[in-house]
Amino acid sequence: MSTVGKPITCQAAVAYEAAKPLVVEEIVVDPPKAHEVRIKIINTAVCHTDAYTLSGVDPEGLFPCVLGHEGSGIVESVGDNVTTVKPGDHVVALYTAECGKCKFCLSGKTNLCGSVRATQGKGVMPDGTPRFHNKKGEPLYHFMGCSTFSEYTVVADVSVVAIDPTAPLDSVCLLGCGVTTGYGAAIKTANVQKGDTVAVFGAGTVGLSVVQGAKSRGASKIIVVDINNDKKEWSAEFGATDFVNPSELPEGQDIVSKLVEMTDGGLDFTFDCTGNVNVMRDALEACHKGWGQSIIIGVAAAGKEISTRPFQLVTGRVWKGSAFGGIKGRSEMGGLIKDYQNGSLKVDEFITNRRPFVEINDAFEELHHGNCLRTVLSFK
Amino acid sequence: MSTVGKPITCQAAVAYEAAKPLVVEEIVVDPPKAHEVRIKIINTAVCHTDAYTLSGVDPEGLFPCVLGHEGSGIVESVGDNVTTVKPGDHVVALYTAECGKCKFCLSGKTNLCGSVRATQGKGVMPDGTPRFHNKKGEPLYHFMGCSTFSEYTVVADVSVVAIDPTAPLDSVCLLGCGVTTGYGAAIKTANVQKGDTVAVFGAGTVGLSVVQGAKSRGASKIIVVDINNDKKEWSAEFGATDFVNPSELPEGQDIVSKLVEMTDGGLDFTFDCTGNVNVMRDALEACHKGWGQSIIIGVAAAGKEISTRPFQLVTGRVWKGSAFGGIKGRSEMGGLIKDYQNGSLKVDEFITNRRPFVEINDAFEELHHGNCLRTVLSFK
Repeated sequence: MSTVGKPITCQAAVAYEAAKPLVVEEIVVDPPKAHEVRIKIINTAVCHTDAYTLSGVDPEGLFPCVLGHEGSGIVESVGDNVTTVKPGDHVVALYTAECGKCKFCLSGKTNLCGSVRATQGKGVMPDGTPRFHNKKGEPLYHFMGCSTFSEYTVVADVSVVAIDPTAPLDSVCLLGCGVTTGYGAAIKTANVQKGDTVAVFGAGTVGLSVVQGAKSRGASKIIVVDINNDKKEWSAEFGATDFVNPSELPEGQDIVSKLVEMTDGGLDFTFDCTGNVNVMRDALEACHKGWGQSIIIGVAAAGKEISTRPFQLVTGRVWKGSAFGGIKGRSEMGGLIKDYQNGSLKVDEFITNRRPFVEINDAFEELHHGNCLRTVLSFK
Repeated sequence: MSTVGKPITCQAAVAYEAAKPLVVEEIVVDPPKAHEVRIKIINTAVCHTDAYTLSGVDPEGLFPCVLGHEGSGIVESVGDNVTTVKPGDHVVALYTAECGKCKFCLSGKTNLCGSVRATQGKGVMPDGTPRFHNKKGEPLYHFMGCSTFSEYTVVADVSVVAIDPTAPLDSVCLLGCGVTTGYGAAIKTANVQKGDTVAVFGAGTVGLSVVQGAKSRGASKIIVVDINNDKKEWSAEFGATDFVNPSELPEGQDIVSKLVEMTDGGLDFTFDCTGNVNVMRDALEACHKGWGQSIIIGVAAAGKEISTRPFQLVTGRVWKGSAFGGIKGRSEMGGLIKDYQNGSLKVDEFITNRRPFVEINDAFEELHHGNCLRTVLSFK
């Protein structure tokens, strides 16, 4: 019996309260309105941003909500005026929308789209209402325009991209955030060139994807900086040439001087993938005078600020950031999937754990383990 | 009688102590050693960096010294192995050297040259000794590799450029710092394009030169921000389209929200020409999300730091700096002088005051007046 046009009752993980486990229960997902798409989620992974919001320190976190933003699935139905995907399409959800029409999309200078930003930040669909409620009838907020922790979800048509149906959904879900964010930061935001030197602070999925982006461009030196020695082997596997544990430096040496020494004056590019503002400062100051660029990817805790002496910038260092790797999801996802399919972009290698969706709270737990990169959850 | 190879006794202004007036007296200037050039200074202006070091707050300031770095003159003699200038050449002194051979010069990415940096920062010539002493025989430190507050000075051959002898020395001395710094920051560091929106914080010689650089590129809006209303007229003369005095905003409105409102979301480029770290933050945060770039030009007081939330960068703003406008002095000064000669680069318009060299302390005084841009001093 067709579900089109009707509410669907399905399994989801609801974040009712900050810093509490998710509640796996049945919720109701309304049909998509105009310019909306209802997706049957097949796979979703858990990213540190989900954990950040769930922890309660995200000042913009809204509860109760359906988290999740790294997911893949199949279009179940579409609302009026949806022309870019159709039922049956394999898709990846996009927390960075791409409308192709707004000032941002038309600028050619950024992947940040303004079309659904205001309502996305408020946990609702563009008409100001949510499509989720629990069986008591309480509305549940959306998250990052995706909410992939539900067997069915509704997203704006600008927040989803159809992909090659031969690509395995349990792998390409990782292109919805972590892998794309790091890889894009290296090849697009930084635009690393052959022979450049690169340092990556934090060797999670994002950091290791920066590593593979830098490797694909022929960087001459790729130094991973992490306080967890378990990451040394991972780093090498993804293409790092060096690994430094800043907590093991000799007395009197800091990470900046160590990196400057290793690179004859500093790095061409550094990437913060930690969200720690002190690390962000180190990453900037480890850049080479005259041209080194530091790219912030990590999300800092609320109220935290970055600082440095302005002299660092006046002498030629550049401080910038990257969101979703500078990638335009609808225009460029196809290319990333091709890169994955032809073996030039590692994705499967990040999947260290697999679980059925009902074990989602274990996946959150695993995210903090040094030997876990990504846990991919499956519905059914 | 030729002075070549002999010490020259001449007039200079010596900074004996921080925060005290300069002492105009006769000093002795040794002949140039190998790869050095002795210049008869004809004109010099006073820049805020001279005042900054004289004030005593520059932690790298050395006393007693001969300040001055915005100067022009005629080569009196050269040491061994000098091939790029010869006696009689008209020249501008360069505080940013260009050797053409170091890692920096060869990078193609920066105008910061490493060749004489270490000794320049220590107030001595590349062999580690000064060429100045007073009549008691006490050595006097050099300043920024130039020391133009002396009728004769000695500089490294990489720190001087020969210019078209038809260019008036009392104008082109300003290309030794202020005008070039601002103009270059706009056309080279920022590379402002037609239609871009620009805000310039601080309307001194540097800021107004940013304005003329932005105007020459066809910027659609050039907003000058200054707390001194006397600068409004100057700003318009150099090409600004708007002037905002942040101290006159209505209750509850700050300069960032004012600028964002004036530009439908923020500026394509902002420039700090104040050296105030709070202004630097405002300049960054007034940039347009997704692509706005803020360029720090001003020199901050010792120990001061810039800060912002990293979210500002993650959402696409870029924080960078500029020294000497990104201009390579020996390669590019000729082009700037041509621009001045053909009327596309304003220089004379900055000369609000002229004085004989002996009145140099008055010139320092005038620098702080809102109606003074530059005082040009003349020897003889």
